[in-house]
Formats: sequence, C-alpha cells, structure tokens
Amino acid sequence: MSAITYELIKRCPETGARAGIIHTPHGSFETPIFMPVGTQATVKLLAPEELKEMGAGIILSNTYHLFLRPGSELIREAGGLHKFMNWDRAILTDSGGFQVFSLGALRKITEEGVAFRSHIDGSKKFLSPEIATKIQMNLGADIIMAFDECIPYPADHDYAEKSTARTLRWAKRCQETLTADNQSMFGIVQGGMYKDLRKSCVDELVDMDFPGYAIGGLSVGEPHQLMYEVLDYTAAALPANKPRYLMGVGTPDCLVESVKRGIDMFDCVFPTRVARNGTAMTWNGRFIIKNAEFEHDFHPIDENCGCYACRNYSRAYIRHLVRVNEVFGLRLLTIHNLYFLIDFMRKMRQSIIDGKFVDFYNEFAPKYVLK
Amino acid sequence: MSAITYELIKRCPETGARAGIIHTPHGSFETPIFMPVGTQATVKLLAPEELKEMGAGIILSNTYHLFLRPGSELIREAGGLHKFMNWDRAILTDSGGFQVFSLGALRKITEEGVAFRSHIDGSKKFLSPEIATKIQMNLGADIIMAFDECIPYPADHDYAEKSTARTLRWAKRCQETLTADNQSMFGIVQGGMYKDLRKSCVDELVDMDFPGYAIGGLSVGEPHQLMYEVLDYTAAALPANKPRYLMGVGTPDCLVESVKRGIDMFDCVFPTRVARNGTAMTWNGRFIIKNAEFEHDFHPIDENCGCYACRNYSRAYIRHLVRVNEVFGLRLLTIHNLYFLIDFMRKMRQSIIDGKFVDFYNEFAPKYVLK
Ligand SMILES: [Zn+2]
Ligand SMILES: [Zn+2]
Repeated sequence: MSAITYELIKRCPETGARAGIIHTPHGSFETPIFMPVGTQATVKLLAPEELKEMGAGIILSNTYHLFLRPGSELIREAGGLHKFMNWDRAILTDSGGFQVFSLGALRKITEEGVAFRSHIDGSKKFLSPEIATKIQMNLGADIIMAFDECIPYPADHDYAEKSTARTLRWAKRCQETLTADNQSMFGIVQGGMYKDLRKSCVDELVDMDFPGYAIGGLSVGEPHQLMYEVLDYTAAALPANKPRYLMGVGTPDCLVESVKRGIDMFDCVFPTRVARNGTAMTWNGRFIIKNAEFEHDFHPIDENCGCYACRNYSRAYIRHLVRVNEVFGLRLLTIHNLYFLIDFMRKMRQSIIDGKFVDFYNEFAPKYVLK
Repeated sequence: MSAITYELIKRCPETGARAGIIHTPHGSFETPIFMPVGTQATVKLLAPEELKEMGAGIILSNTYHLFLRPGSELIREAGGLHKFMNWDRAILTDSGGFQVFSLGALRKITEEGVAFRSHIDGSKKFLSPEIATKIQMNLGADIIMAFDECIPYPADHDYAEKSTARTLRWAKRCQETLTADNQSMFGIVQGGMYKDLRKSCVDELVDMDFPGYAIGGLSVGEPHQLMYEVLDYTAAALPANKPRYLMGVGTPDCLVESVKRGIDMFDCVFPTRVARNGTAMTWNGRFIIKNAEFEHDFHPIDENCGCYACRNYSRAYIRHLVRVNEVFGLRLLTIHNLYFLIDFMRKMRQSIIDGKFVDFYNEFAPKYVLK
C-alpha cells in the first residue's frame, strides 16, 4: 500500500474532467487542485496560516533550491520540511531535474546523473536519481518526484527518444532508492511532442506501478494547442485509479483546458510571481493595481472574492502600498491571486460534481482566454 | 472634554515611573507603552492582525510621508486612516516637522511655515501649523501632534530660544486649527538642552492646556546622560494628570531609563528597522540571526518569548530565510522584535503596579546596557 492514494469521486460524462480526493500522511485534499509553490521552504511573503485560510491542502517545494541552501541534511535534522517550515498539510517536492536542466551550459548529463555548477556561487554539484531521491527523503515530502530530463522544445525525435529512454532508466533507479513508507513517488511521463514516445513512456511507467503520474516536458514554449494535443493522448493513456499531475501550469485558461483532459494536480509560480509585480488575477482577466484608474477606487480587488485582501482592503490602499514599495501590498496581492486560483479550482471541481463542467468551461473560456 | 484622557493607576514611590491607561475613541491602552511605527500607512511587512496578536494598542503614522503619498485628501475620502489601513485601534500621527527639518538644504523656515522639496521627486511643498493640523484631521488620527521645529544638537542658546518661541506660536496656531472633537492634540516641549528654555516651554504649553505633552528634540545625537538630565527636569515639570510622550526612543535601555523619569509613551523605528537587517532583540541583548552559530540551532529566537515567531519557528529556519532573501524571515524577526518591546513595556508596567519597578530596573539595566 502506497503512502498516498487517489479516490475517484466523479467523472464528467462529456469530457475527461474528473473530481477526486488524494489521501496523504498529512491530510487529504480534493482534486483538481492548484498547489502554491514554496521554492525555498516558504511560499514567498506568506505565512502557513494564510495558506490554510485560503484552503491550500498541499504546497510544492523545490529540491534544487533546498539542496543548495540550506541543504537537505539540515532539514532532516530539523525534523523534516513540514516541521522546519511549520506546515502540517501535504507537501510535494520536485526532483530538481527541471532546474538543473535549465542551467544550460552550466551542466553536463551522463548516464549516472547531472554535473552542474550552483547558480549562487558556481560551486560544483552533482544530482543523480539516487541523490535526488535521497534529498527528497531527507525533506520528508509526502509526494516525491522521480528524477527526469525535461526535454526542451523543440527537440528532434532521435534526441527525445534517447532522453526518454534514460528518464525511464532513471525512474527505475529512483523507485529502487525510495525506502520510506510514508512517502510516495510519482513517475514522470516525458517523450517530447511525439505521440509514440509519450505512449511508450506511459506504458513503461505504468508497468512500474507508481501511485501517481506527472506529465513533464509541457508548457516549455510550445503552442498551447500542441500542449493540449499531447495532453489528450497522454492523459487518456494513464490509469484512471491514479492521480495525474501537469507540472508548471497555472494560468486559468490552461487549467480549465487541462482539467477537461483529465488532469488532477497543477503547480505554477505564475500567480505569486505576477502578484509581486503588482498584478491582480480575476475571473475577468488580470489588471495592474498601480494604474491611475485605481487611485480613488475604494472597492476591493474583486467584489465577489472572499479572500483576506478583498474582505479588508481597497484597490486604492493596495495601489498606494505598491507605489511606495511597501511589501504588505504585494503580500495582499499574493493572497488574493492564490485564493483566486484555489477558489477557481474549487468551483471547477463543484461543476464536475454537479455534472455541469461543460457549462463551466463554456462560460469561462470565452470570457478569459481572449483577454 | 478632550477626545483622549489619561488615567493614572499607580506611581512608583521611589522614582518617577507610573502606570496608567489612556482612553481614546479607538479603545484604551495601558501605559507605559511602545508604539510600533507605520510610516506609510502600514507597519512594514505586518498585517494589522499580527499587531493585535502581539498586543499593540496604538500605532504611529507619519504626516510627512502620507502628505506626499498618497495625500491626506485621498485618505479622508477613504474614510480616514483607520479604515484605509484596516486598523481599528488608536493611531497617533506626528506633525511632519521632524521629517521636514531633517531635509537640511532642501527646506526653508519662515514664521508662516516650512517650504521644502519632496525627497521623492523634488517638487515644491509647504507645511505650516495650519496645514499640518488639517492633514492630521484628514487622516483622522486619535492623537495628533502640534507642528514644531526639532532643534538640532548641538544648538546655541540663542537659536534654541528663538526656535522654541516660534514652536510655541505655532502650537497656538495648531490648537486653533483643530476643530474635530474626536481628535486630541499633544503639545511638544522643545528648548534644546537648556533647562530654562525647557521649563518656560513647559509652562507656556501647560497654559494652553493640551490633553497630553510630547518631549521633542531628544535622541538627536546627544549623549544618553544628557538626554536623561533633560528628561529629569522636563518630565517633572509636566502635569501628573496628562500623558507624556518621548518621541523617537525605542531601545530597551533608554525605555527603562525614561519610564523611570515618568514617561508614558514611546515610538521608534529601531525594532522594525533592525529586524529588516536580520537582528533579533532579546532580554539579554541583540544578535544577528545570519551568524554561522545558528545554522543548526533549532531553538526559537527566545525560549521564553510567546510571539508567533518563537512559538512556531527555529533560529535555523529564520536564518535560512534571511540568507536566501525570503521576506518571511524578516517578517518573523519584525514580529519578534515588536512583541519583545511591547512585552518588555508590559512587564515594566506590571512591576510598577506591583511596587517593584526598582527591582525591575536593577535587574535589567546591568544585563542589557553593557552589551
Ligand atoms: Zn481577493
Ligand atoms: Zn519571539
């Protein structure tokens, strides 16, 4: 029995959308879900209590960053990431692969793993399937990711095939390294934008019987329509009794399109990053709070939003804070944007439960996507 | 009847220390008290709920900064500073005098007021007793300050005498401008480091019958011992039935020395500013959280502290956050430092109530001051 289990609650009869519950050693959460990103053992600007108040059931943290600072041994010594950062709900950690491969010239791939230089001080580092897994074991995440190569876009079929074959060999090594029975590992489907590679990768991973599957190598610069095509056949090939996680996706239009294709879990720095640039997300699109039109606007960011920021502060106040470089303004925007996305997923899920997902999709898509 | 009243609860029989309560239109708070500074309509990094949790009964905000951005008319339009910033306890605003006089070459003083250039965009501005009072009326602060000149240190007797005379004429004009009956104005005692000027300034201000008195022009670079001397005769000359506020003082050693001389209210950016530099304040002095000695220190900042930071996070975690430039670390230090000072004043007050202020003083002073 794996540490996490997926319970399918309801399927949309007309699309791939599904509502479920994922049970973890640190509580259960409903899917589809958006996971806030806490890269360096903190969701930037926020306290754990603020994440709980908005209904976050799981957050993501980053192996690459925590490996460099403060080091996973220190976090193990602290009693694990949950205790270190005062978060008692579920945590998912990535494998570090994505960040390491993004280093470009600073890294070198071999069958054994990836040698790279730290982006902080240039020091030599090495990550392998075994090391990435052990780091995540030290961190004590509920859901840990296999170490994979995120294939860049575009990539030719030959490169994608070789890379995917190595990712599969690495997945096996990761699986053999994981010994903690209170942690579950997800396999990651790669294969570039090639249907044959995606499908054979799914087949091999399913044979390894992971308790969940991530779809990697998407949202890496390809057109949205191509991402949706890959999702169509990849998600459809994955087993219905396991959760499916699309990595790095977090704009409302992509979320609804991906849920439609059967995805359950998402993460993205987008909502928190744009908040720190002064941007508010709403059901009708985004706006820049600094704009002059909000100077005397004493309404909340969104009249219909139930978040802490919208219950207590006006656009005029938040605009003032952002203009005079007061961090509390960015904190309020971060709270609002994360609440918005979590609430967005909650309402999407309810539409699936109510058998009205297609209505949700039809109402939302034209209103938002065309902005 | 003024909007605020002072209730004297207990006097120390051996020193000037006293415990009281100040009643305002936005609640009552116990004195002696430390007031956190919210310069730009926010106490940097914190939400109002965090200030309430630590027991803050009153905060200070700055006329100069709010005059420049966003402007006091906008805050009046928003329903006042309390509503604008979501703070329903008491607010004290300074008069802007201190900031304007600190501009040096950028300002010109006349009997009418002070012409200066904004430190932000260089634009021409003007503050006078009437304008400073009207701004504070727009802000809706419970306690507002008369517009004064903070005499620099050192200053000769002639300059100090002329400046103090003008400050007194300005105090009269401020008093005549204030019409709101839900706001109270404090007069400010100036006079440099000269006993004759301080005493005559007190006499004239007392004749004007303000509901409270601030002591300005201290903590401006003079030796501590000189400040205590001035406090000795100035505080002693002030009426016992009115609160006394020492502006700009906020280190524990100065707080205990000033309470000993009969001061009730304090404000200072020190605890929040050093927090943002990574410094923690404790009963045994200060330390830099980034220091290597705290890398594996899984104890709270202070084992005996009841603040949110100390209840939930380790020195190792906060050190990690500060090292990797995560604002949440500075927020935790800000919470701790403000809690420490508020708690410090709470315990000092209790010692007065218990008739043990001298013990408190004797125990604390050698432990802290010599650091
Ligand atoms: Zn909101
Ligand atoms: Zn503390």
